[in-house]
Amino acid sequence: MFRPQIKVLDCTIRDGGLVNNWRFDDNLVRKVFNSLAKAGVDYMEIGYKSSEKYFSRDENGAWKFCTEDDLKRIIGDTETDMKLAAMADIGRVDYHDIPDKKDSALSMIRVACYAKEIDKGISLAHHCLEKGYETTINLMAVSKVIERDLDEALDDLSKSQVPVVYVVDSFGSMYSEQIHFLAKKYFEALPGKELGIHTHNNQQLAFANTIEAIIAGINRIDATIYGMGRGAGNCPLELLLSFLKNPKFDLRPILEVIQEFFISMKAETEWGYHMPYFITGILDEHPRSGIKAMASKEMPELRKFYEELRDGTPLD
Amino acid sequence: MFRPQIKVLDCTIRDGGLVNNWRFDDNLVRKVFNSLAKAGVDYMEIGYKSSEKYFSRDENGAWKFCTEDDLKRIIGDTETDMKLAAMADIGRVDYHDIPDKKDSALSMIRVACYAKEIDKGISLAHHCLEKGYETTINLMAVSKVIERDLDEALDDLSKSQVPVVYVVDSFGSMYSEQIHFLAKKYFEALPGKELGIHTHNNQQLAFANTIEAIIAGINRIDATIYGMGRGAGNCPLELLLSFLKNPKFDLRPILEVIQEFFISMKAETEWGYHMPYFITGILDEHPRSGIKAMASKEMPELRKFYEELRDGTPLD
Repeated sequence: MFRPQIKVLDCTIRDGGLVNNWRFDDNLVRKVFNSLAKAGVDYMEIGYKSSEKYFSRDENGAWKFCTEDDLKRIIGDTETDMKLAAMADIGRVDYHDIPDKKDSALSMIRVACYAKEIDKGISLAHHCLEKGYETTINLMAVSKVIERDLDEALDDLSKSQVPVVYVVDSFGSMYSEQIHFLAKKYFEALPGKELGIHTHNNQQLAFANTIEAIIAGINRIDATIYGMGRGAGNCPLELLLSFLKNPKFDLRPILEVIQEFFISMKAETEWGYHMPYFITGILDEHPRSGIKAMASKEMPELRKFYEELRDGTPLD
Repeated sequence: MFRPQIKVLDCTIRDGGLVNNWRFDDNLVRKVFNSLAKAGVDYMEIGYKSSEKYFSRDENGAWKFCTEDDLKRIIGDTETDMKLAAMADIGRVDYHDIPDKKDSALSMIRVACYAKEIDKGISLAHHCLEKGYETTINLMAVSKVIERDLDEALDDLSKSQVPVVYVVDSFGSMYSEQIHFLAKKYFEALPGKELGIHTHNNQQLAFANTIEAIIAGINRIDATIYGMGRGAGNCPLELLLSFLKNPKFDLRPILEVIQEFFISMKAETEWGYHMPYFITGILDEHPRSGIKAMASKEMPELRKFYEELRDGTPLD
């Protein structure tokens, strides 16, 4: 038995782009697009909407920007039920960079923000809603937010027009108990809204926590092909599709695209479970020190890396 | 808050030995032994008790046999609270190969058997109990056992003297729901006995399912350093120790031994999450075809590998 309300969003190009600054060949993006459509995935998040005022195309591939020209190069005249989405970060995109929905190949904008900037997040989300998009808010890094502040952010969201809010485990630090706790809290605070889940794999729990979110009633599910994503990566799409029972899903196009591109890409860029990401995850820290360590291609002394990150500088 | 009844057993050398035919240098085994002892691990399963009548030392390292001489080379005169264990497989060891406990460095024998050979398993386990060992039964591959047969095996176990029985996910095919279902079934069928959990990582759920087993009340917990084990490997010890709250556990010796040996060894021998193991896992199949594919060093055509394993030969 499957739950027809469950919608799968693949964010390989968007979250995976954090690994390679969105420098994916058009050929790869086109094959990912076609494979996801064939596999029955509901949404493909193809990148960020960012302003070229703030970021350059010298340093970033097309999927940092997702202009209509970029999108057209990929989708051509393909007809598919799969919808396209892009993420927008507060302060990295200007309102006028977002065209009206009727002029865009995008169907959905997901606004990512921290609890402390929830008012800016809601404002941008309302702007996207007014322009005609399906719109969500992805509340990042909540594992570091004290409960009083989280409750306030949820209260603001409950009064907003935003119909979908994501539980996000940015640091890959959560266990199933945190997922169930947050799902319950969000459902109670946000009556009438839908919830989503976005996980990271620092503790090899991205897929497991996604399952727990589904058990807790969450219907908007993020995954990426072969788990590609920042640091330890995300919930692997192939695992998610093999877990979900809806007959519309077909794993085989995903197996093909993994074989053609992602196995070799992972060997080069090393997202996934690596000790520096494990250490930032268990300590509930931003993965930046892990990413720096992995990028240096020389494994840091792990005991020291752990002790320094754990103990920090005494603060009183 | 921690649960003092929880006991951690590391089976790196035993299950990891299935990857390299137990050909570990004594130096590595000694460092693993010392690191586990320092980390506060309760048991180290150092290999199999097998008969040299059935297996040769040309083809297998010492930890396929675990004679007293082998053990002495490692532990010397080290004093530690950590106990040593070995696994015994039905039909691969003769009763007289197992010395009396008073003449052995081993404290525990774990008998591995399938449900259909439960009577042989109980008989060997009773023999080990009579010789003075702590003894367990690890009931393998239960994901393929129909419920009537499993209930009969559990009924036999309930009437036995064996004090500890393991829930074993041999094929890495279980989700949290199966873990909770089996834990409940085993607890109800085996009043007065302790339960254990042993998982495989084909679906990146080894650690997650171990957590769920702990939540379900299971206290005997298997893990391996950096997840080393057959095929996709096991629940990584470093993840388990960072989850458990008992102050006696210290992660740092494990970080050191991972850095010294296991990162490079994993790059060579490729246990862990790989697509062939993923495919055997989601199809609830023995990993042998995945192990064969990985050993050939050439990735099989994944779509075909999946379809053939899924569809098999029509049976009517």
